[in-house]
Amino acid sequence: MRSATIKDVAEQAGVSLKTVSRVINNEPSVHARTREKVQRAIEALDYRPDPSARSLRSTRAYAVGLVYDNPNPHYIISMQSGVLAACRKSGYGLQIHPCDSTSPRLAEELVALVGNARLAGLVLAPPMSEQPELIRKLAAAKIPFMRVISARQDPQDGYPCVYVDDRDAAYAITEHLIQLGHTRIGFLWGGRDHRSSPERYQGYEDALKDYGIALDRKLILPGDYSFDDGFRGARKLLALKDRPTAIFGSNDEIAAGVLAAAHSSGLSVPWELSIAGFEDSPFSKQSWPALTTARQATEEIARHAAQRLIGNLQRAANGEPLEEGNEGFSPELVVRGSTAPLRSAPAKR
Amino acid sequence: MRSATIKDVAEQAGVSLKTVSRVINNEPSVHARTREKVQRAIEALDYRPDPSARSLRSTRAYAVGLVYDNPNPHYIISMQSGVLAACRKSGYGLQIHPCDSTSPRLAEELVALVGNARLAGLVLAPPMSEQPELIRKLAAAKIPFMRVISARQDPQDGYPCVYVDDRDAAYAITEHLIQLGHTRIGFLWGGRDHRSSPERYQGYEDALKDYGIALDRKLILPGDYSFDDGFRGARKLLALKDRPTAIFGSNDEIAAGVLAAAHSSGLSVPWELSIAGFEDSPFSKQSWPALTTARQATEEIARHAAQRLIGNLQRAANGEPLEEGNEGFSPELVVRGSTAPLRSAPAKR
Repeated sequence: MRSATIKDVAEQAGVSLKTVSRVINNEPSVHARTREKVQRAIEALDYRPDPSARSLRSTRAYAVGLVYDNPNPHYIISMQSGVLAACRKSGYGLQIHPCDSTSPRLAEELVALVGNARLAGLVLAPPMSEQPELIRKLAAAKIPFMRVISARQDPQDGYPCVYVDDRDAAYAITEHLIQLGHTRIGFLWGGRDHRSSPERYQGYEDALKDYGIALDRKLILPGDYSFDDGFRGARKLLALKDRPTAIFGSNDEIAAGVLAAAHSSGLSVPWELSIAGFEDSPFSKQSWPALTTARQATEEIARHAAQRLIGNLQRAANGEPLEEGNEGFSPELVVRGSTAPLRSAPAKR
Repeated sequence: MRSATIKDVAEQAGVSLKTVSRVINNEPSVHARTREKVQRAIEALDYRPDPSARSLRSTRAYAVGLVYDNPNPHYIISMQSGVLAACRKSGYGLQIHPCDSTSPRLAEELVALVGNARLAGLVLAPPMSEQPELIRKLAAAKIPFMRVISARQDPQDGYPCVYVDDRDAAYAITEHLIQLGHTRIGFLWGGRDHRSSPERYQGYEDALKDYGIALDRKLILPGDYSFDDGFRGARKLLALKDRPTAIFGSNDEIAAGVLAAAHSSGLSVPWELSIAGFEDSPFSKQSWPALTTARQATEEIARHAAQRLIGNLQRAANGEPLEEGNEGFSPELVVRGSTAPLRSAPAKR
């Protein structure tokens, strides 16, 4: 049997030779449905394009860059998986670019990255996605990007994003603890350069207020989205004379640190201390006890962000107007073994 | 003050215009020292090449691909960090390519990846790095690659690699448990498609043999490198009439599952059950108690692998012979709170 040719593929898929060639070369200006049709024909005919010939014909490689600065491996892997899922569907590669979000030359670094690596566009994770100056510079350099940000609603600031309502989920977690009878609820902040931190804090404060519980500043500590800050923060809170009966860590890494601090203090969780996190990372299911948390569909959020970026690239390539409006996500409360009803009235001073 | 030109950079660095242009375009045929000299001059003069002009001049983007199939986020993030460190030093980008190691068309997939994305070469993680058929096909397609494999010594099989001596470290872990008085030591396997699994098992078996402890097949269970298999395996071992007093999980994810199973059975760790893992993942420091494990310098190993790949690419571009010999790494025993002396003689049937 003779090998299939590009002409066979075009006939079987009912498209032009040019379209098959575009699919093979991973050019963005092909709609997903057409791409799938061609790929099915390639599969069915077992057509093998010659890679060396291909790289001569096409002078561009299409890849998206994912820009992040986050110490949490679970979050990063989920972001990568989501962006990759969208990239693969459209024939894009994924270049990863961890960076220092505090670098004064970050905009220049990203512009150079896109230029050097011929990236089609960037997906920006927090906190880079939340730096207005950086965003303006990237837009001025005509770099296509999509932001993942924390916001209650569509910011309508003229730049595309997907947004996550952290405040609502943090409210739900705090409310859950209050409904279990807790009134002394510690709160450990995440990094101040992430907009999600004040959003989560606000959800906590709003819930206390709505339930008529006075805010006690001694129970609220600054820190970063890290295990170590969770551990340190919890040690401080647990050393208070009138210690909290529940601690809400701003993410699961912090909550993991709280859990370790509780264990090391000989406190039984959840009976002597309730603990809640945020994110639904794998750790939150594997710890003992498993963590009450907010399910933040990081992978899905990242997939949508990349899909919208690629969709816009394809629209731009086809001379069509870009997608209007942005997409929002709401994390949901997940109750597990680390939270329980208050057993007795908290000790009074 | 006028802006610096490429000529100023060449003069300051004491190299030709062509060399500066090569550095700016991230071409591989520049030695690291020259590259650094040019980059220092660019920095000192605050020279900004025009990215749009640059992309017209140079038709190639240089990126390395990292190929992996592993459920363990800590391992993956460490691999990525190591490869990235080497890439950045030499001006390469990093494309990530998680894949299905059991796919019958994996070789074709990787050849297409390199062709489509114009990758300069691949770093292959286990188990892909340990599939002889795949390796032969990549070599036949003239794709430059570097393998990270598990082996006691340089395999000298004609293909480049960095190798990790898992057996020796597994021996050290088992010996540590024996020296604490344990003789009934459970062993939970990792995935059979990873060569590290039989290597770690062999270290366990060798240590028992050297200390004159008879192998008990009931204490050895198959599984994958996952939390769930650790949990399931430990539940089975702990249900034995003559249960083990220590369990060695083939990696930290498995050991985390064992820890959860012990907690859920009400066993105090380490006093009623000693647990050891392998890898020194962040979890192993954050769990309660922290895990005794083997420190596998994944990031450093990956960095060396990528450096050797890029070094060979530069040698090939300069017409020089490739580096001879391969590099080996030995994980080291790290003792933490999850292992303790046997308190009493194990129950006899």
